[in-house]
Amino acid sequence: MNIFTLNDFSTTDINSILDEAEEFKAGKKVDFKGKKVVANLFFEPSTRTHYSFDKAAYNLGCRTQNFDTTNSSIQKGETLYDTVKFFESIGCDAVVIRHPKENYYQDLVGKIKIPLVSGGDGTGNHPSQSLLDLMTIREEFGHFDGLKIVIVGDIVHSRVAHSNYEIMKRLGMEVYTSGPREFEEPGYNYVDFDTILPEADIIMLLRVQHERHHDLMKLTTDEYHRLYGLNQERVNKMKERAIIMHPAPFNRNVEIADDIVECKQSRIFKQMANGVFVRMALLNRVLSDD
Amino acid sequence: MNIFTLNDFSTTDINSILDEAEEFKAGKKVDFKGKKVVANLFFEPSTRTHYSFDKAAYNLGCRTQNFDTTNSSIQKGETLYDTVKFFESIGCDAVVIRHPKENYYQDLVGKIKIPLVSGGDGTGNHPSQSLLDLMTIREEFGHFDGLKIVIVGDIVHSRVAHSNYEIMKRLGMEVYTSGPREFEEPGYNYVDFDTILPEADIIMLLRVQHERHHDLMKLTTDEYHRLYGLNQERVNKMKERAIIMHPAPFNRNVEIADDIVECKQSRIFKQMANGVFVRMALLNRVLSDD
Amino acid sequence: MNIFTLNDFSTTDINSILDEAEEFKAGKKVDFKGKKVVANLFFEPSTRTHYSFDKAAYNLGCRTQNFDTTNSSIQKGETLYDTVKFFESIGCDAVVIRHPKENYYQDLVGKIKIPLVSGGDGTGNHPSQSLLDLMTIREEFGHFDGLKIVIVGDIVHSRVAHSNYEIMKRLGMEVYTSGPREFEEPGYNYVDFDTILPEADIIMLLRVQHERHHDLMKLTTDEYHRLYGLNQERVNKMKERAIIMHPAPFNRNVEIADDIVECKQSRIFKQMANGVFVRMALLNRVLSDD
Repeated sequence: MNIFTLNDFSTTDINSILDEAEEFKAGKKVDFKGKKVVANLFFEPSTRTHYSFDKAAYNLGCRTQNFDTTNSSIQKGETLYDTVKFFESIGCDAVVIRHPKENYYQDLVGKIKIPLVSGGDGTGNHPSQSLLDLMTIREEFGHFDGLKIVIVGDIVHSRVAHSNYEIMKRLGMEVYTSGPREFEEPGYNYVDFDTILPEADIIMLLRVQHERHHDLMKLTTDEYHRLYGLNQERVNKMKERAIIMHPAPFNRNVEIADDIVECKQSRIFKQMANGVFVRMALLNRVLSDD
Repeated sequence: MNIFTLNDFSTTDINSILDEAEEFKAGKKVDFKGKKVVANLFFEPSTRTHYSFDKAAYNLGCRTQNFDTTNSSIQKGETLYDTVKFFESIGCDAVVIRHPKENYYQDLVGKIKIPLVSGGDGTGNHPSQSLLDLMTIREEFGHFDGLKIVIVGDIVHSRVAHSNYEIMKRLGMEVYTSGPREFEEPGYNYVDFDTILPEADIIMLLRVQHERHHDLMKLTTDEYHRLYGLNQERVNKMKERAIIMHPAPFNRNVEIADDIVECKQSRIFKQMANGVFVRMALLNRVLSDD
Repeated sequence: MNIFTLNDFSTTDINSILDEAEEFKAGKKVDFKGKKVVANLFFEPSTRTHYSFDKAAYNLGCRTQNFDTTNSSIQKGETLYDTVKFFESIGCDAVVIRHPKENYYQDLVGKIKIPLVSGGDGTGNHPSQSLLDLMTIREEFGHFDGLKIVIVGDIVHSRVAHSNYEIMKRLGMEVYTSGPREFEEPGYNYVDFDTILPEADIIMLLRVQHERHHDLMKLTTDEYHRLYGLNQERVNKMKERAIIMHPAPFNRNVEIADDIVECKQSRIFKQMANGVFVRMALLNRVLSDD
């Protein structure tokens, strides 16, 4: 059993993964007693996804192998398939992969026998991030149906946006996007940020990727902050029960004002906490599936 | 007890290590219950040897410390001896070392009290690789005596070739080498590849090291593939029960055609699987030796 | 409970930490049974402090997450606070931090709820190093009162010197410093090395930091060795029971002659061994403090 994109999962499946994540949060224990080994293969810099999967594996009593891509045979030109096949060959029980290439997993499907769990592919999908977003929303509102979310920022390059747009619509949410027009995804539901702000139940901010956006974005970071940054003034216009989300890492005073990061409406660090529980649910599912 | 080169081991020792590796493969359990800690010190990029030793330690119920040479006091000019002595001082129970300097262990012998296991020294020796090669051969043929092997590629720079040449001859095998003449090892048994191919029981391919060979090799990779690459046409000329081996990482379509990597005669991924079992046998031997 | 500087600890506290470290050395067992996870966040190269904390956590039956700062969101400009807050959010039980910025912890105090243990801040403090120095001295002499120590080298840039100067004076030791005048710390007790040598109970050498000192130091390494290097001739002038200490990594034949590193008077590798026990005492203290 592989987990590459939530497109492969029914809404029933998704709710059942979230149910188990909530059970783990409430204290449910699963202990593989060190007998299962999860290999973490991260071919892009990552803090949250990497160490959250690592911690999730620990919480399940698994061991982990953290593949150091900077000091490996990758530097000798080895293919992704050959690297993953190696970790299968030495007896690992599951592999978590983050890779810069969109749909990297098409080189692996049907050829690797152990479960593969994607930690993000290029600008494509990021299923565990979507699940932690959904868990945080369901905890807050108790349901998905009819909730209005606006995702703000670089939509076209964001695997978070792409993952969430599809599944949130499927779960009955109204999904809007906003931000600089040069980052609009064709076919998505683009709206003016300050117009949607007072109506949205969830404001989901995306990171301004300085390193990538330098040439693409027509705005300075100051201009970005003025036009799309969430500051106290905008927070004051939010609905009373509306919440703020961000996949992190965030740029303080660019997409979010410094004093908003941990304000009453922010669920940013709660998202991180929930990330471990959804990843426990995912790993438990694939490791128990024989 | 240290393991630096198989030259130090009798053929009886070697067969007894292989016996235990087979027992581990058949399910034998040894569990140090987290009380033993193995430090992995890899001063050269490595995927297979590093993570295979790491997994072997896990399988024995050991913990591991994976020394990150890129973010350590090595950058401050610390000697190998002083680094290893540190891991001894903090109470590690064994150290696995890969180092670019041939015979690096001469600086350590007799001065470090905990067991040292070499994961390869420069172009010198690679004992755990030889053992996994021997395990794969013995599994296949049931014996060594009289088997013909040809090792093809950059013999002179290969610790795999050097390690195997000596021990395989000692075990009664007929060992031939082939490949570009500029990579011939003086004194070894050089033969024409296409002449030996139909007679060999084992075709062992070595990796073309692009990064190192750029200046040394007089061939393009296409020419190499044409002259020494194992493709379907050459596979058709192999003896019926002959097998293909490669220490990996391999270059698809250079020393081996893409469709040959996992063909019926290939034992390449089986070698990787066996690597964990021989390393379990080595670590168990040194950790049990008090 | 946080551990950033020994200035926060009474001499009674310090002796009680050392007492527990000695109990661990004598065989006392504490086993968190894999239920506690310690995150090691090292933002500067480190061998000894990093792997010693890691080993200490293992000895207490904890798991560790070793944050790879070269392949993380730090590269995306994340703040230290946000990184530490992430490790708190995913449920780590303590965080060990080494950071190049002096007093880095002022950004964290009162805002992070899990215990923080400093592995060194810039040129400021290095509490676990001081504790292992003190443990080694107390083991040797049975007390601190009246002992004469001279710390030799780059005092002004050394967190080891700064940490030790304060606490050793507080414990009743006579603390002197020596070395090139350009590295003198104003207000410290500077003396001529060869004058103090025959009177000192402890000669503590500091590392010449080639990479940093290239421009600052007015001496070649040969001149340094001649003026301040501990060689056999100087060792012969030491008091009979005097000992040699060095926090390591050391430069052989610069601040210490090659043949002095492991001479009878040297406690350098004993310091490393003791480092694990004081770190066990520190981690046990913060992890047991609920």
